[in-house]
Amino acid sequence: MSRVAYVNGRYVPLDRPSVHVEDRGYQFADGVYEVIAIEAGAPVDEALHLDRLDYSLAELAIAWPMSRAALKVVMREVVRRNRITARGIVYLQVTRGVAPRNHAFPADVPPSLVLTARPLPAIDAAVVRAGVRVVTVPDLRWKRADIKSVSLLPNVLGKEAAVRAGAYEAWMVDETGRVTEGTASNAWIVTAAGDLVTRQADHAILNGITRRMVHAIAAEHGIRPVERPFTLEEARTAAEAFLTSTTSLVRPVVRIDDAVINDGRIGPLTERLLTFYLEHVRSAPPAPRPARTTDVGAAT
Amino acid sequence: MSRVAYVNGRYVPLDRPSVHVEDRGYQFADGVYEVIAIEAGAPVDEALHLDRLDYSLAELAIAWPMSRAALKVVMREVVRRNRITARGIVYLQVTRGVAPRNHAFPADVPPSLVLTARPLPAIDAAVVRAGVRVVTVPDLRWKRADIKSVSLLPNVLGKEAAVRAGAYEAWMVDETGRVTEGTASNAWIVTAAGDLVTRQADHAILNGITRRMVHAIAAEHGIRPVERPFTLEEARTAAEAFLTSTTSLVRPVVRIDDAVINDGRIGPLTERLLTFYLEHVRSAPPAPRPARTTDVGAAT
Repeated sequence: MSRVAYVNGRYVPLDRPSVHVEDRGYQFADGVYEVIAIEAGAPVDEALHLDRLDYSLAELAIAWPMSRAALKVVMREVVRRNRITARGIVYLQVTRGVAPRNHAFPADVPPSLVLTARPLPAIDAAVVRAGVRVVTVPDLRWKRADIKSVSLLPNVLGKEAAVRAGAYEAWMVDETGRVTEGTASNAWIVTAAGDLVTRQADHAILNGITRRMVHAIAAEHGIRPVERPFTLEEARTAAEAFLTSTTSLVRPVVRIDDAVINDGRIGPLTERLLTFYLEHVRSAPPAPRPARTTDVGAAT
Repeated sequence: MSRVAYVNGRYVPLDRPSVHVEDRGYQFADGVYEVIAIEAGAPVDEALHLDRLDYSLAELAIAWPMSRAALKVVMREVVRRNRITARGIVYLQVTRGVAPRNHAFPADVPPSLVLTARPLPAIDAAVVRAGVRVVTVPDLRWKRADIKSVSLLPNVLGKEAAVRAGAYEAWMVDETGRVTEGTASNAWIVTAAGDLVTRQADHAILNGITRRMVHAIAAEHGIRPVERPFTLEEARTAAEAFLTSTTSLVRPVVRIDDAVINDGRIGPLTERLLTFYLEHVRSAPPAPRPARTTDVGAAT
């Protein structure tokens, strides 16, 4: 089945070029994005994702391309047109718009909005539980990783280093030897003393929605995460380690470079958090049936 | 006149969407670019720009989208189709290509190539000599500014801060208080002792082609630039200051934040270097007439 994208007011075949050469997303990485999971055809933690989108847009002084309500309708229409009735993801990108190339913000240009969606296979808990390996790379990123911008080149290079090493993810290490996060996920450890630790959400990391949900769910179950930087050495000698993201869920990390974690198996606290998180994902309320209008979000 | 772009093997109207949503330049800033001046219809310092393109591509392991010879032909054809017979610029962008969104490098995907061009008014030496103001901003960029990538969001934010302050450019200052460069230009000062100083070309700055030419031209005239980091305080108290870039040429800086440089006028060494550089630009050899083929660079 050919996929459908929403691009600036129209639903178009994904394989048809639909972005302008002078879109500032293309020439300047001047845009932001979100990746939202779909379960049973409905978005997971949609409100949190749209709140974060609002934060990213505000930090860059990019206007909302349409109302939040309209965006929710478009998101559901993209899901419907791509026939995602079970699991999948929606990708949403907003850029500062199209203007003759010039670094400074253009005046009176509407932002660009693109949405795509694709189905994913159902979650296989056994595969998730088996865990993954991570390698470590220097954190080369800019100083505002809290903004979910499309300025992802260092993340790309880090992930490629992971893949070449046969690993699933790369954890990035800052100049002081502390782990910031993964290239597309947040990093967590359980110390020998039993503390659940993840770096505080400052400008050095993206405050992941899954990170926030795991934090909240853990607290509900009486587990209080400690938010502080942790060193690579702490991670290598941790009792447990895992990573979180929209598509990775709660994913045990069983090796960090050459250091085997918990004998290469999911740890007990990670197991509990994964179970809680899967319950959360699967209990997401079904989305209301969207209106089948195509007027919403017509380009202005 | 409507402008024409070259996009992946075709010459298309610039105002027609021609880039894929899943082009990695759009979703990951996974690409590089060059801006090349045109004088008398011919590219200026073309070989140096193509050498730097080669460096940027190699650092990111992106293949050349076509041979260097073919790219030179396409560049001339874009200049011709946009009727740039006097001064102008060519913008050239290469990305890792189009692939389903995934941070790691895709396999067997051809890189994307886009070229645009636009005319510029003839150089007005009096305007250039009048000089410009710069403000300073923290350098928020990633740690590989030597790669001319489209990962330009911090540069965009810096330039916008300059424009909002009524300035021409923002000089970026690192955590140690040293100036790295401008958001789209290199930074130079002349110290009270008469030393011509610009930061050495390491990973913290882009090694500008105009920077290199000015360096070479200065040396030809017995002026030996000192390549070292300089502090913001040194800059504020400098005898002269200027910035260099393809479009800014050698541009006197007459104010840095609230510090007036050389009583607000172009300094004597800057004046000499500007004169030498304009001679260089204007003496660029005329381009050979391009073959009028449209086969070159057909998409593969």
